[in-house]
Amino acid sequence: MVARVRVSCCELAPVVGDLAGNLAQASAAIGAAAGAGADVIVLPELATSGYCFQSPDEARSLALGGGDGIFADWAELAAGSVVVAGFAERGEDGSLFNSAVLLCEDVRVVYRKVHLWNTEQLFFTAGDRPPPVVETPVGRIAVMVCYDMEFPEMTRAVALRGADLLAVPTNWPWVDRPEGQPAPEILIAMAAARVNRMPIACCDRRGVERGQRWNEATAILDESGWPVATAAGTGVATAVLDLSQARNKVISERNDALADRRPDVYR
Amino acid sequence: MVARVRVSCCELAPVVGDLAGNLAQASAAIGAAAGAGADVIVLPELATSGYCFQSPDEARSLALGGGDGIFADWAELAAGSVVVAGFAERGEDGSLFNSAVLLCEDVRVVYRKVHLWNTEQLFFTAGDRPPPVVETPVGRIAVMVCYDMEFPEMTRAVALRGADLLAVPTNWPWVDRPEGQPAPEILIAMAAARVNRMPIACCDRRGVERGQRWNEATAILDESGWPVATAAGTGVATAVLDLSQARNKVISERNDALADRRPDVYR
Repeated sequence: MVARVRVSCCELAPVVGDLAGNLAQASAAIGAAAGAGADVIVLPELATSGYCFQSPDEARSLALGGGDGIFADWAELAAGSVVVAGFAERGEDGSLFNSAVLLCEDVRVVYRKVHLWNTEQLFFTAGDRPPPVVETPVGRIAVMVCYDMEFPEMTRAVALRGADLLAVPTNWPWVDRPEGQPAPEILIAMAAARVNRMPIACCDRRGVERGQRWNEATAILDESGWPVATAAGTGVATAVLDLSQARNKVISERNDALADRRPDVYR
Repeated sequence: MVARVRVSCCELAPVVGDLAGNLAQASAAIGAAAGAGADVIVLPELATSGYCFQSPDEARSLALGGGDGIFADWAELAAGSVVVAGFAERGEDGSLFNSAVLLCEDVRVVYRKVHLWNTEQLFFTAGDRPPPVVETPVGRIAVMVCYDMEFPEMTRAVALRGADLLAVPTNWPWVDRPEGQPAPEILIAMAAARVNRMPIACCDRRGVERGQRWNEATAILDESGWPVATAAGTGVATAVLDLSQARNKVISERNDALADRRPDVYR
């Protein structure tokens, strides 16, 4: 485990329908981030397909098998770094999933989004397995997708399973908010990071798509829940995190964020 | 159930050791808030005793039985409104608890804080029962105390039990934070309110006590998690909430904040 881990979130602007262009954009981002020394590279949800599908057929035409050759290409471009990226997955039986892949050299783990947001339910089947917590050379990395992260049961569960970092590919449709407030999803992520003492890297997307705006709220949060990097301007959020801190849940002389839990009264 | 519910949090400054003075201060605040039309009045944690005890004996000398006459006085002053207030409780067997009482006319429900923060463990026994969700004339009100609220399992549990409002007496010791960020406990409360579609009224304290500063971060959050009132200046945060909104968990055409939960994968 490496104490100083460089995490980069690449806030890409996929174009729905342009599979080849999106793959090229993602490959370029991975290569650039790895070249700049990133240890962990996070791309948005559905980075390969875009988000605003007009029909199930369109979604299907933009889906990839979990064993698609692009993933080997990305792992090679990453040159030993970890990549977490969202993609539209065509399952073995033809069902579509809103998935994320974690790549690191020969490791390839695919997670299927469990909590589908709104119209995603028209195109995708919900996953039915817990998010992975993957041992990598820089620590244990958990993966979930967008709306999943808004379920504190799920963020807690990966923290209890020992995640040192949670990577969240996301596409956050624009949400109105009071003046001066951040995107609500970021507040939820900050709280999840803090109560679990687990850094979270949220990679949002940009680029208006079929009239849909996005929060463009990419942020890397440390284990206290504070934002340490955003993608404002450059499109890439980069932070150096000491992931060893995520294994220390002590929050006062007599308190431990996880050991203080009292499951016997949570009913 | 009343759609327009006026909630007031009175950010008092108890003085540790001055039981009589603290009771008088609390009584005055309840009378004033009720006189101003509050339907729900929330006071801080340990409003009767102060917080920074020097010894268990001192804490004991400031504790009240759960049936103390002051609670009937407060209910009378409240004139039909709901009061939620923190107090040091001397239990039947002499154990001390960091408790909160909910009063409404003849109803009196005492909750004993389950998650004790730091030195509280030197003075108090942890409660071992879930927080109450109490049916009142203005809706179902849940009660927890301070650090309890930082456990998303507990906030979720009261939402699942149908709470329309969560009242949280608190004493938040000062926490350093990055420039421009709110107290971290407020972030946690905002997230809890939003993911559960449940308004939360957090009543902090003020007044430096034995060198201890406080966040003075009293806030009333609506069911979207946004702060709609603070106690800055006046010492009283007041907001009118439509608690009927808390019974509507719909967050998109196809999503429901609670029905979307997938307990089968939270492991």
